[in-house]
Amino acid sequence: MDYFYGPGRNHLFVPGPVNIPESVLRAMNRNNEDYRSPAIPAMTKTLLEDVKKIFKTTSGTPFIIPTTGTGAWESALTNTLSPGDRTVSFLIGQFSLLWIDQQKRLGFNVDVVESDWGQGANLDILASKLAEDTAHTIKAVCIVHNETATGVTNNLAKVRKILDDYRHPALFLVDGVSSICALDFRMDEWGVDVALTGSQKALSLPTGMGIVCASPKALVASETAKSVRVFFDWKDYLKFYKLGTFWPYTPSIQLLYGLREALDLLFEEGLDNVIARHARLGNATRLAVEAWGLKNCTQKEEWFSDTVTAVLVPPYIDSAEIVRRGWKRYNLSLGFGS
Amino acid sequence: MDYFYGPGRNHLFVPGPVNIPESVLRAMNRNNEDYRSPAIPAMTKTLLEDVKKIFKTTSGTPFIIPTTGTGAWESALTNTLSPGDRTVSFLIGQFSLLWIDQQKRLGFNVDVVESDWGQGANLDILASKLAEDTAHTIKAVCIVHNETATGVTNNLAKVRKILDDYRHPALFLVDGVSSICALDFRMDEWGVDVALTGSQKALSLPTGMGIVCASPKALVASETAKSVRVFFDWKDYLKFYKLGTFWPYTPSIQLLYGLREALDLLFEEGLDNVIARHARLGNATRLAVEAWGLKNCTQKEEWFSDTVTAVLVPPYIDSAEIVRRGWKRYNLSLGFGS
Amino acid sequence: MDYFYGPGRNHLFVPGPVNIPESVLRAMNRNNEDYRSPAIPAMTKTLLEDVKKIFKTTSGTPFIIPTTGTGAWESALTNTLSPGDRTVSFLIGQFSLLWIDQQKRLGFNVDVVESDWGQGANLDILASKLAEDTAHTIKAVCIVHNETATGVTNNLAKVRKILDDYRHPALFLVDGVSSICALDFRMDEWGVDVALTGSQKALSLPTGMGIVCASPKALVASETAKSVRVFFDWKDYLKFYKLGTFWPYTPSIQLLYGLREALDLLFEEGLDNVIARHARLGNATRLAVEAWGLKNCTQKEEWFSDTVTAVLVPPYIDSAEIVRRGWKRYNLSLGFGS
Amino acid sequence: MDYFYGPGRNHLFVPGPVNIPESVLRAMNRNNEDYRSPAIPAMTKTLLEDVKKIFKTTSGTPFIIPTTGTGAWESALTNTLSPGDRTVSFLIGQFSLLWIDQQKRLGFNVDVVESDWGQGANLDILASKLAEDTAHTIKAVCIVHNETATGVTNNLAKVRKILDDYRHPALFLVDGVSSICALDFRMDEWGVDVALTGSQKALSLPTGMGIVCASPKALVASETAKSVRVFFDWKDYLKFYKLGTFWPYTPSIQLLYGLREALDLLFEEGLDNVIARHARLGNATRLAVEAWGLKNCTQKEEWFSDTVTAVLVPPYIDSAEIVRRGWKRYNLSLGFGS
Repeated sequence: MDYFYGPGRNHLFVPGPVNIPESVLRAMNRNNEDYRSPAIPAMTKTLLEDVKKIFKTTSGTPFIIPTTGTGAWESALTNTLSPGDRTVSFLIGQFSLLWIDQQKRLGFNVDVVESDWGQGANLDILASKLAEDTAHTIKAVCIVHNETATGVTNNLAKVRKILDDYRHPALFLVDGVSSICALDFRMDEWGVDVALTGSQKALSLPTGMGIVCASPKALVASETAKSVRVFFDWKDYLKFYKLGTFWPYTPSIQLLYGLREALDLLFEEGLDNVIARHARLGNATRLAVEAWGLKNCTQKEEWFSDTVTAVLVPPYIDSAEIVRRGWKRYNLSLGFGS
Repeated sequence: MDYFYGPGRNHLFVPGPVNIPESVLRAMNRNNEDYRSPAIPAMTKTLLEDVKKIFKTTSGTPFIIPTTGTGAWESALTNTLSPGDRTVSFLIGQFSLLWIDQQKRLGFNVDVVESDWGQGANLDILASKLAEDTAHTIKAVCIVHNETATGVTNNLAKVRKILDDYRHPALFLVDGVSSICALDFRMDEWGVDVALTGSQKALSLPTGMGIVCASPKALVASETAKSVRVFFDWKDYLKFYKLGTFWPYTPSIQLLYGLREALDLLFEEGLDNVIARHARLGNATRLAVEAWGLKNCTQKEEWFSDTVTAVLVPPYIDSAEIVRRGWKRYNLSLGFGS
Repeated sequence: MDYFYGPGRNHLFVPGPVNIPESVLRAMNRNNEDYRSPAIPAMTKTLLEDVKKIFKTTSGTPFIIPTTGTGAWESALTNTLSPGDRTVSFLIGQFSLLWIDQQKRLGFNVDVVESDWGQGANLDILASKLAEDTAHTIKAVCIVHNETATGVTNNLAKVRKILDDYRHPALFLVDGVSSICALDFRMDEWGVDVALTGSQKALSLPTGMGIVCASPKALVASETAKSVRVFFDWKDYLKFYKLGTFWPYTPSIQLLYGLREALDLLFEEGLDNVIARHARLGNATRLAVEAWGLKNCTQKEEWFSDTVTAVLVPPYIDSAEIVRRGWKRYNLSLGFGS
Repeated sequence: MDYFYGPGRNHLFVPGPVNIPESVLRAMNRNNEDYRSPAIPAMTKTLLEDVKKIFKTTSGTPFIIPTTGTGAWESALTNTLSPGDRTVSFLIGQFSLLWIDQQKRLGFNVDVVESDWGQGANLDILASKLAEDTAHTIKAVCIVHNETATGVTNNLAKVRKILDDYRHPALFLVDGVSSICALDFRMDEWGVDVALTGSQKALSLPTGMGIVCASPKALVASETAKSVRVFFDWKDYLKFYKLGTFWPYTPSIQLLYGLREALDLLFEEGLDNVIARHARLGNATRLAVEAWGLKNCTQKEEWFSDTVTAVLVPPYIDSAEIVRRGWKRYNLSLGFGS
């Protein structure tokens, strides 16, 4: 039956969760520990310090939350915005769609900028919206750095430039789930106010940690944001940061050790080397797709993603059947985007 | 320095997270997998079916949420109640205190019934409040089954009896974090509307899963409850249950396999045998404490907890020093309650 | 430096030790146990019963020895032969060379039948030697089923036929290290007297178990064989088999659990399906080598091996450099045969 | 049935194999690797260097052999002695009995010096034998440092002194299986010629490595020793040491990484601290046994063992029943000595 796996190792090539390095598996293969012992806060301190490096920030404040990417989104929004606040959000694929849905359900007034799937965020429309918004009703610009469903990478430096051009004070919120640690991302340089990722993507861990990083401006916003929140409330974290015990509730001991090892691996290879490796492999993948006579879903080179290559399946082929056959015959896991 | 562990194995005796059986560690020691493959939904189906057994319910609907106990609390409250709703909550220790704090911050009108620490919930006051509440302004009774900080177990059958005596329609919400799988708990028989636990307690897993179970009445309530929620929204789960893919967002593959093994171990020994074992060991622990000339924090036998024994430290001894010395000299982890 | 591994997973494609299935790694990831407890003998009993199936024997007696393939060779020889005994051995590659060296050093009178590397054992010479040996001075025919260095598989059924044709009583000793569990092997049908394999080859375990199986005729021979032996002496095993405690000295608990899982995987897929899978993949590999314009070291199709494909490197290329580059650039492990 | 384990963790308190530290389990939890890659020889080099420290030798040559303690015995004997050589051996318990049995079966002329069980080796008799042996017919003195069955530690410094007093050239062979890494042992200072241990004892690894260390004098003896040997032959190791590839046959990759971690743990705590810890715990155990009104099997304080405490069970109690009940009721593994 379908539950059965083929012989040998499973080949995992979905756009997440991704393969876990064996040394990370080893680091996590341990018993529970008392998170109030001296050891866990001491390790947590190093994690909070080091996790800032993957965001390329020195001024940001990170939160390691026992949740998924969806929870990280919620943490970013509810801590900085109040019900009714206007956000500008870009709809370019399945994950931006889900984030926009969340923004609506959390009571924000979402101004959606839609593009065809396979295209990046339409930043010209952003510019015109900001130009018109002299009253500063736009409280946040929300953008997915890398849209996993379509393999599209947005130009965040340009978003910042447009915000600056119009001297617009809107918060700049970035979903970096399928980009951070694998694509070039610069929180401080690009003036990102909240950036977030999930453990199961480029950090190559199991699911279970939403990592959110807030700029000083975002922290200030969190003091007056009126969205109801408890589990996701940064205030509780900040309180325990001050106490030096760090955790408002029980973290996963195993994921902490896993994150430690994942960061060590990352820094050993060098974050910029890791990003260059993804660029090299992304390019190789696109060349292979082209050589096979298939088409990249992403419509222009400027949006090519080095973490996800989405391939258009010819109309006479059922993409679900490709995935099914890969699984049954080859113990191979592929994903489809829509 | 304090980060250093002593030689040999750490002895973990805090009231959670608890020791993980080695076969559960083995089951979790694996790579990520595609959660949209045929294997994960097939396994999830067995988990959702089997997890109901630990709540002793056949009519309940379980939700396995990638969060902690704090998140499970929030899931129970926001899915069933609306801002301003009146709840009756019992303050008997540190964890009931935190839950009450959450209820307030989520915007409910909390009617707190306080007891001295070491005592159980004052059910006489519950009775009089229900008697007076002919207008049914009380929407929920919230109670911690087993208060971890003080080692007090509340009598849930009696809560149900009082609700029935007054034919009161309030929802009955139970925090079973340190009870379910270890103490006698009967969701259907006791008419509990939402019960919840966390993976790192009696299920003996790492932290990372909040398991919430909703009665049919709670599900009905969730259709009209106005609390804002997205990550914790049961509706998204129910939608994916219908699709047969089960997960609205990425679960931890490792915890799913761990839960499968933990449930298998539990059923192999027999849930009632496990509960009896805890009763036996709880009794032995209390006898030992008595023999050492120390006092149990719990003031009456009817509230004795079989999962947590809280020992009163004589006033001339610093309990923090006991914990510190245990850690440094014996690689032993103990917890203190306040 | 060379000690450093590249990023990501190592790709292991040497002819042994081979990749370990993840469920086998999981099964072995455990603490030591008392091998005199009731659990270990009970499990050992199932292992000894099931391990006979991989040899396709019902009359054989297996020995699971904490050693390597080299030790398994020594066990096969010293338990059945006496110093000065004449053996006929085939020299066709590096591993048959090493076995012949061992036979000489153990004091046997080795009659070597040499072939060019890339060719199988010369069975015509065997026939003529047996024909001449009317005095039955030949005590054993020793043959490597599959020569790992050259990717050559010998025809064991034919060896048996020749022995039968001349009604020769010589023992038939087979090194099945790189064949058993992956190539067709039939101990009973082919009248093999001692067959042996190592845990790190087709059983896909770590190194550490030499598995030797003796026919009733070999057991009889062991009663009078005069080679000095203690660690490798079958008598000690047989004594503990009778006692039901099975182990004359401490086994590796981890390897026992690993062997249990490896056998379970094998039987779940079906031994004949596993063999067919190797035939399919071996053929695919040979077709790929041909398509690349390279030559197979094995000179005739009748000797093609389905477990090892040895590729001749053109004279103007340094094979060591290929291996070195694979390791450094791609974290890829390849082996070379000589 | 007996195969079934009780709930929770097994409590392992037999005199070996012993509990494995969790970081060692983690280090071993890995796939196979090519032992001819650059990484494994580089690691092996550090192991061979560091393993000398546990013997307290700088001039010795270590051999890490894929075998058990029984195989390590055979390696020590066959590499240094020739058939018919006279050895003096002390019979003081089950393990010395087995070693003497091996010496006899390997063809040596064993001169057995017996003591009552519970007593140490009778060194007065050794002195008189050496005094008489002016022709130097005694080729080796073989002694078990710590007899596991009776909890008796022999005085090796005194053995050396007696050898020196009579200027006797006999080799000094020591079984350190249950002593090395836990009891004070000084190969160079005490002029031990071959010392050996097994991985599953104080090194706290799985079974599978016999570690043998040879003095320069033992290496010279190995050049002329006539005992037949191949698997255990030091010559093959020495040949590969010179080549820098170190392994004459496939080692267990997992045990190499495990040994690396075990040695790191040992040196982190400090070998002398580890020995002191055993002294402290051994003393505590003896005091407890005394307080319970039971008797130590070891008859005099000078022989007290800090690694094994053998307790005499009163005649009206069946020791097997104690072990059986511990296993069935408490998931507790105890051993008995005879």
